[in-house]
Amino acid sequence: MKPVCLVIGAGAGIGGTVGMRFACEGYHSVLCRRTGQEALESMVRQIERDGGLATGFIINAIEADSIENLIAKVEADIGPIEVLIYNLGSQVGNRDLVGTNYKTFEMGWRLATFGLFRAASTTCPLMEKRGRGTILVTSATAAVRGNKGQHSHASSMGGRRMLCQSLNAEFGPKGIHIAHILIDGAVDAPDTLGKMLGPKKYEELRATRGRENDGLMLPEKIAETYLHLAQQHRSTWTHEIDLRSFSDLPWWNTD
Amino acid sequence: MKPVCLVIGAGAGIGGTVGMRFACEGYHSVLCRRTGQEALESMVRQIERDGGLATGFIINAIEADSIENLIAKVEADIGPIEVLIYNLGSQVGNRDLVGTNYKTFEMGWRLATFGLFRAASTTCPLMEKRGRGTILVTSATAAVRGNKGQHSHASSMGGRRMLCQSLNAEFGPKGIHIAHILIDGAVDAPDTLGKMLGPKKYEELRATRGRENDGLMLPEKIAETYLHLAQQHRSTWTHEIDLRSFSDLPWWNTD
Amino acid sequence: MKPVCLVIGAGAGIGGTVGMRFACEGYHSVLCRRTGQEALESMVRQIERDGGLATGFIINAIEADSIENLIAKVEADIGPIEVLIYNLGSQVGNRDLVGTNYKTFEMGWRLATFGLFRAASTTCPLMEKRGRGTILVTSATAAVRGNKGQHSHASSMGGRRMLCQSLNAEFGPKGIHIAHILIDGAVDAPDTLGKMLGPKKYEELRATRGRENDGLMLPEKIAETYLHLAQQHRSTWTHEIDLRSFSDLPWWNTD
Amino acid sequence: MKPVCLVIGAGAGIGGTVGMRFACEGYHSVLCRRTGQEALESMVRQIERDGGLATGFIINAIEADSIENLIAKVEADIGPIEVLIYNLGSQVGNRDLVGTNYKTFEMGWRLATFGLFRAASTTCPLMEKRGRGTILVTSATAAVRGNKGQHSHASSMGGRRMLCQSLNAEFGPKGIHIAHILIDGAVDAPDTLGKMLGPKKYEELRATRGRENDGLMLPEKIAETYLHLAQQHRSTWTHEIDLRSFSDLPWWNTD
Repeated sequence: MKPVCLVIGAGAGIGGTVGMRFACEGYHSVLCRRTGQEALESMVRQIERDGGLATGFIINAIEADSIENLIAKVEADIGPIEVLIYNLGSQVGNRDLVGTNYKTFEMGWRLATFGLFRAASTTCPLMEKRGRGTILVTSATAAVRGNKGQHSHASSMGGRRMLCQSLNAEFGPKGIHIAHILIDGAVDAPDTLGKMLGPKKYEELRATRGRENDGLMLPEKIAETYLHLAQQHRSTWTHEIDLRSFSDLPWWNTD
Repeated sequence: MKPVCLVIGAGAGIGGTVGMRFACEGYHSVLCRRTGQEALESMVRQIERDGGLATGFIINAIEADSIENLIAKVEADIGPIEVLIYNLGSQVGNRDLVGTNYKTFEMGWRLATFGLFRAASTTCPLMEKRGRGTILVTSATAAVRGNKGQHSHASSMGGRRMLCQSLNAEFGPKGIHIAHILIDGAVDAPDTLGKMLGPKKYEELRATRGRENDGLMLPEKIAETYLHLAQQHRSTWTHEIDLRSFSDLPWWNTD
Repeated sequence: MKPVCLVIGAGAGIGGTVGMRFACEGYHSVLCRRTGQEALESMVRQIERDGGLATGFIINAIEADSIENLIAKVEADIGPIEVLIYNLGSQVGNRDLVGTNYKTFEMGWRLATFGLFRAASTTCPLMEKRGRGTILVTSATAAVRGNKGQHSHASSMGGRRMLCQSLNAEFGPKGIHIAHILIDGAVDAPDTLGKMLGPKKYEELRATRGRENDGLMLPEKIAETYLHLAQQHRSTWTHEIDLRSFSDLPWWNTD
Repeated sequence: MKPVCLVIGAGAGIGGTVGMRFACEGYHSVLCRRTGQEALESMVRQIERDGGLATGFIINAIEADSIENLIAKVEADIGPIEVLIYNLGSQVGNRDLVGTNYKTFEMGWRLATFGLFRAASTTCPLMEKRGRGTILVTSATAAVRGNKGQHSHASSMGGRRMLCQSLNAEFGPKGIHIAHILIDGAVDAPDTLGKMLGPKKYEELRATRGRENDGLMLPEKIAETYLHLAQQHRSTWTHEIDLRSFSDLPWWNTD
């Protein structure tokens, strides 16, 4: 039986691409997303065409029991989860304080912080029994510094990072590897950057900064680092890592 | 009319003591806490005996509209809030992951992160109109590093810190000073440390580490730093500061 | 006998102003700088006119034994050093890598890192015997993040910060308070900013951002925070603090 | 012609092992160390037996022009340096302030900070002309927090980290990838840990924490992460990463 890689947040960017990369490497990739049944099926078929195993689920992670039931179902029907990729974001664009209503702020926390807590609460005890497992958490610059218009995003991602550190303190010594991956730049992803910018601006950006200029992070390259983290020997684990394009300054720099 | 200092979380530790210190300095201190009507009234009377002005409110900050209504009432009945002290904690003691249920985790966020967001959402627009104001946020080591048993505390405090940075990015240039105060040690406070340890252990700790040994942080000394921050000239503001006893190692050190 | 406040780097900005503020507060201020005998004497006379005590020394801190002999002389002739203000900077402006020669790089380290090590090596054993003392270290944004053109400045200030943390770990529990003060903005100081910009640009900057706009940090306001840190009770010490104008974004923010 | 991987500090731990790993991957590994001619030759022969290319140099990196001449010689005689591994440490064990003399403190800086500056000053202009290159810098927990007995180590490593960030800000956009690799735990290396502990204690530690317990970091596993960093596509670079054994708590945690 193949080890299972469960991707929560498998859109056409980091999540889906990581799922496909792990499938190539011999994992059964379980891809979950909130909408886009057709796109999901198409990803699953592509993995199968390449000789891999994949299963797709449409779930609304915000709903009570959704993540919990998903994990139970995967463990029962597909196999033990070896790698969990938590890839739900909480970016709502730049919004000033009065433009950030309570519902938005709470939604950010539900997606970025509480969702990970629910996923970990369900998965860690199972992994603990097996003495092994990996949880890779996609994160954002907003996890390490607040900024204008980032009230919801930064507080939910900052909470996520501190949760990763707390999970790791409890479960690292039990063989569960939790890594916080700081995506510190724009990703060439139609489902996130594309939707945020709209098709015209997105294509312009790809033409100027992306493609052969490598100024946008390529999901398939990001996936290599996720795979490397999942393959690290337990004598040598990374808990925090950052990623950005060579042409982007890290968040701590200014022009 | 005296400037108003509103303290949300005015127990017999940092909150109440800061409120009394600001009252000495000429503020009308508005002290709010969830329980302890008698203790609250006693604080108010003590301030009045010393020639100061104080008002007390019992509020349950978790409840919808509680913070919002409080702020509206203070502004209407007492005067413009010059300084807001946000002093609600979310420490629930060390709890491993399975011992931290969803309700606890959510409660931590409601107290530490969302409560500050609600208070800031209500207060900042008022302060912005006046072109001035100060928000001092009591925080904890858990805001900068997760740790074993700190799933709820660290994620909620980490969210709080990133929120402070986001608030400051928007409102600093508008004259509103937001400072994140990292309390990195045990405070000699009966309402928090005392309740966590129980009366016997608390007295033992005070006898060995506290009192003349100065190994427990004294609320009245902490209050001096809060006052200093509130009095900083706007050409010279502090946004992050840490505090601990001389005999405690900072969080980044190990023995 | 008055307690002694020794200022290493007492120009017409933070250093000299802090020295004057401490003199007002009852310290005997010992002001040391590399050049400017007249300006130094003028500061000393001003303090004396205000009823304070001050002594001035011209020393070249880079020279072997200069700091060591100075401290010995002050302790022998004036009195025990209660507060040491280490205020030597290593800013050489923005220089790219090929524009930063080995001598410049080494000079940065000698001023920012090694000079503090020498001062602490000489002072801490004396303070340790007395069971008390304060070392306030002026630092810069470059201590927490490297940046373009900051090869020398950032590495020397980063070394300084880690040295402060190491000193504090050893000497904090022995009653010596070491604080790292991150000056995260432009200071309205003719001896540093003024010299860097030249008189014309400096006046322009003061006219637009400084003065009543409070966009430049005022040394006399900075001095208030230095004084507060020196006066903190040992149950409640700050080890790291940042300072900037309200209209400047902290280093972790971007526009 | 094979790309060149130059390792400065190629002992029987991270440095030598990384050199061997890169040789397997098709690099010509140039191994440099201060002493141990025989061990060096043995490494070179082992690489050659495995079908790889290697050259060894004994150099004393502290000496003026040593690093500069080495780099010139490698570029002239062997080929363009594609990857530079800077692996010189400055650990001198725990020494309190009076036990850390000026010479030791300066030596730490010469090895950890100035040596990297010299190597980068010589290599970066060459890499810049070629529009590509990688500099991987081995670093230590002391780069991010000072600690008792770490006056020399922490200040020199803190300087190193800030230098890496400054180098990256200038050269990242020019195609040169600089990564700071924080080794946050004990490495199973006879040349460093072994020498520090002595043979008996080292074997005891290996027997209890190391080997099948994976509590000591294995150099050959660390080498996998170095290789991954060198292979990252320029759209997706890591600048800071940490590594430790699963059974070690990260530096930010406490027991």
